[in-house]
Amino acid sequence: MPKVRATPLGELASRLGRAVEGDARFVARGVASLDDAGPGDLVFVRGARYADAFAKSSAGAAITLPSVDTGGRPTIRSPRPDLDFARAVALLVERERPPAGVHPSAVVAPDAQIDASASIGPFVVVGARSVVGARSVVHPNAVLYSDVRIGADCELHAGVVIREECEIGDRVILHPGVSIGADGFGYAFDETGRPAKIPQVGRVVIEDDVEIGALAAIDRATLGVTRIGQNAKIDDLCIIAHNCEIGADVIIVGLSGLAGSTVVEKGAILMGQTATTGHLRVGERAFLGGRAAVHKDVPAGVHVWGAPAMEQRAWHKSMAALARLPEALRRLRAVERMLGLRSRRSEDDA
Amino acid sequence: MPKVRATPLGELASRLGRAVEGDARFVARGVASLDDAGPGDLVFVRGARYADAFAKSSAGAAITLPSVDTGGRPTIRSPRPDLDFARAVALLVERERPPAGVHPSAVVAPDAQIDASASIGPFVVVGARSVVGARSVVHPNAVLYSDVRIGADCELHAGVVIREECEIGDRVILHPGVSIGADGFGYAFDETGRPAKIPQVGRVVIEDDVEIGALAAIDRATLGVTRIGQNAKIDDLCIIAHNCEIGADVIIVGLSGLAGSTVVEKGAILMGQTATTGHLRVGERAFLGGRAAVHKDVPAGVHVWGAPAMEQRAWHKSMAALARLPEALRRLRAVERMLGLRSRRSEDDA
Amino acid sequence: MPKVRATPLGELASRLGRAVEGDARFVARGVASLDDAGPGDLVFVRGARYADAFAKSSAGAAITLPSVDTGGRPTIRSPRPDLDFARAVALLVERERPPAGVHPSAVVAPDAQIDASASIGPFVVVGARSVVGARSVVHPNAVLYSDVRIGADCELHAGVVIREECEIGDRVILHPGVSIGADGFGYAFDETGRPAKIPQVGRVVIEDDVEIGALAAIDRATLGVTRIGQNAKIDDLCIIAHNCEIGADVIIVGLSGLAGSTVVEKGAILMGQTATTGHLRVGERAFLGGRAAVHKDVPAGVHVWGAPAMEQRAWHKSMAALARLPEALRRLRAVERMLGLRSRRSEDDA
Repeated sequence: MPKVRATPLGELASRLGRAVEGDARFVARGVASLDDAGPGDLVFVRGARYADAFAKSSAGAAITLPSVDTGGRPTIRSPRPDLDFARAVALLVERERPPAGVHPSAVVAPDAQIDASASIGPFVVVGARSVVGARSVVHPNAVLYSDVRIGADCELHAGVVIREECEIGDRVILHPGVSIGADGFGYAFDETGRPAKIPQVGRVVIEDDVEIGALAAIDRATLGVTRIGQNAKIDDLCIIAHNCEIGADVIIVGLSGLAGSTVVEKGAILMGQTATTGHLRVGERAFLGGRAAVHKDVPAGVHVWGAPAMEQRAWHKSMAALARLPEALRRLRAVERMLGLRSRRSEDDA
Repeated sequence: MPKVRATPLGELASRLGRAVEGDARFVARGVASLDDAGPGDLVFVRGARYADAFAKSSAGAAITLPSVDTGGRPTIRSPRPDLDFARAVALLVERERPPAGVHPSAVVAPDAQIDASASIGPFVVVGARSVVGARSVVHPNAVLYSDVRIGADCELHAGVVIREECEIGDRVILHPGVSIGADGFGYAFDETGRPAKIPQVGRVVIEDDVEIGALAAIDRATLGVTRIGQNAKIDDLCIIAHNCEIGADVIIVGLSGLAGSTVVEKGAILMGQTATTGHLRVGERAFLGGRAAVHKDVPAGVHVWGAPAMEQRAWHKSMAALARLPEALRRLRAVERMLGLRSRRSEDDA
Repeated sequence: MPKVRATPLGELASRLGRAVEGDARFVARGVASLDDAGPGDLVFVRGARYADAFAKSSAGAAITLPSVDTGGRPTIRSPRPDLDFARAVALLVERERPPAGVHPSAVVAPDAQIDASASIGPFVVVGARSVVGARSVVHPNAVLYSDVRIGADCELHAGVVIREECEIGDRVILHPGVSIGADGFGYAFDETGRPAKIPQVGRVVIEDDVEIGALAAIDRATLGVTRIGQNAKIDDLCIIAHNCEIGADVIIVGLSGLAGSTVVEKGAILMGQTATTGHLRVGERAFLGGRAAVHKDVPAGVHVWGAPAMEQRAWHKSMAALARLPEALRRLRAVERMLGLRSRRSEDDA
């Protein structure tokens, strides 16, 4: 458990803009789940279903909906306790921040520009003409090739690699091992039928407030830009291929792979292990269920499932029908027998 | 081929607790597959089906079942030749071990504790208060953030990243690029409908004898612990999301993704590219076939396949029925024609 | 956009062995897509469908088919404009090349052999007896264990890890984070039913002209060799498991996983998220559609789709039949009603 700034509940509530019920002088010394909470801990109680679990827990205080009975224990009331608990945790937890400045072991090009408030860790490499903005933290062993731009308040975790000419906005978080700007997977078959590399000379632009999970790969464009829009959230081990355009607030869950030139519009959600073939558009606020494989445009707001993906209703019907298929085949045989189209005991009935 | 300690077969057999048939003075100078073996090599002969291949090979000696004819060549007899061959290889092969001590280029926090018998390679970073146990090897460019604990006899390969507060048991192997303790993928939609980060302040605990494949990501818990149980084996490029609990001896094959708070009980096997939606339980010794997508609990011992996953028997029936479906549709049309429900040549017959 | 050597179109055309139509003195100062092109840019016009877009663009010159009308603007005519554009980009774009020599921060074993023309970047580790060939570039933080051989003209990007005894040919490109030679995922169940590690003592051989995408893992053989054949192209985040043999010119798209001992013959194409169970053969020029899961041999030239994979024609029929299944079940019920096998309103009709 990370260190927590011991904070009176009243002070916390006022920073959240919420009211306290019960003893506002209660001092939160930790945050925990209902299962693990001790008497100094603040917990999140999702709703009335969890009131019992809270009652039985040793938790000291709760953030919950106005309607949930917390038995008199100190409580911050909120219409959105999930959001307020997340904000409370962010306020309470003290993450150690590496000191500002460039670690003496780092190799920084003489013409790179590192803001004085940024932190460049051990064994980091910053290439020619690259820029790191205010208060950004680059953890050990990350590598920025040349002409890279990192905005302010970013956190680049250990082992991140950013290839040349790529651009990262403000408040971007890149988790360990993320690869930004590797060559896209582009080949043309040459005169002898063998794959020949198409040079990938575009770049990647990552807008503000994006977060990219561990070991994900965002490939540079063949020409032009692969773009990750503002506040998009991409999970571990995803591929965003060359020339994709990911809209603002898009969510892409782990092990998904978007083929080249896929456009995903604002607010769409792609669940885990989804895939798109290239050169198609996933519309605003569309939803791709887990494992969906999309091979044509998905209109705005539409939910699709399956591989090949179909609209949710059609997919549910197909899945239900598939489950009933073995029995339907038996019924078809009974019909055929009645009509004399099949003998009473055919081998097919086995 | 790595170096092998030249070892008389008799000595090897006695270390394995097995008997030799034929010349126990044969000296094993290598290990190989049947295809590649030379006269100094020890090979594994799985069973009688491979007796011919052994006879035709140049292999010098075999480990095999008591029942397999090895034509008089030196043979270690074993009821479990696969296990004994694996043990023999481990005994014979000499892996170079990096020297104990901290490489002068490594950056180790003054308050970190490195056992004198541990090996810390070039460009390794060990954060504040972190601990590395006896005989553990940390290969080049691995990064341990602060408050990390590594037990004894571990091997952390190049480029491994372990985030703060995570804990690794004894005899754990982490292959290149593994990410331990990156933030879980947790967001709440804020008042404007945009995803807002939920701080991930839990940690990861990896128990003894676990092995994790290259470029896999084990994410830290939101609150509490993501746990990988004793002797669990996780393949390359898997995601174990926040708050998962993986039981002892569990096997998870490559490119699988377990969503948040999945519980996998002891001895379960998840084949390649499987997935679970979160907050469910895969029971003890359950089996998820390749590509299974599980969206509800799987009882102990049950085998499931498909997406959405169903019990193996039902899935086999569905797949068989699906294969017969085009023909069944033709038969249905024939029935309809006979009953006058369809004209002899309808467009649908195309 | 990377730097481009300003080059007269006539000179470029003659290097490509093609003819210019229009002003051969036009100087190409950039390459771009039709959408982004300015008056100094050379663009690729795929065919007559794009003639309009070219006419409306500001592009200065085109490479296109002889038949496409380019309205008098300077044009290189080619029967394969895609290939020639790729070649033109390679000729025009100036990539900065790190200087030859070993960066002073690198840790190179005294008995390693680094060609004088090779470039070894900051924080690179080269183990005992390893060899790096002429003009090869090893970017920062890459790690070569002992006894590794890298040929000539290779590019190993930042964070690449190559385990001991692995061998890389000439002109091989390994993108950031690639893992070569990690242990294969091999276990035997011991006498108590628990998975026990099978030592992985083989190696990986990567032949000439191979390219491997970011964060892909090519695991070493249990015994013998995992081989990636000449000019094979493997995308990001793929797994090639122990003892696989990948033929020449094979293409494997992202997030695919090949289980142990899979053989893929020359020129086969595996689309994204495909999988093979082990010990099978994908024949020459076979094609695995996106998400195909192959569990038996695929003959040469055959196209398969689906999971479990079937021949393309059968799969299309099954998918079409599945789409019609809900309606077929309704028709079956109508037939049953007509025959008195079902009452007019049964619960099943819901």
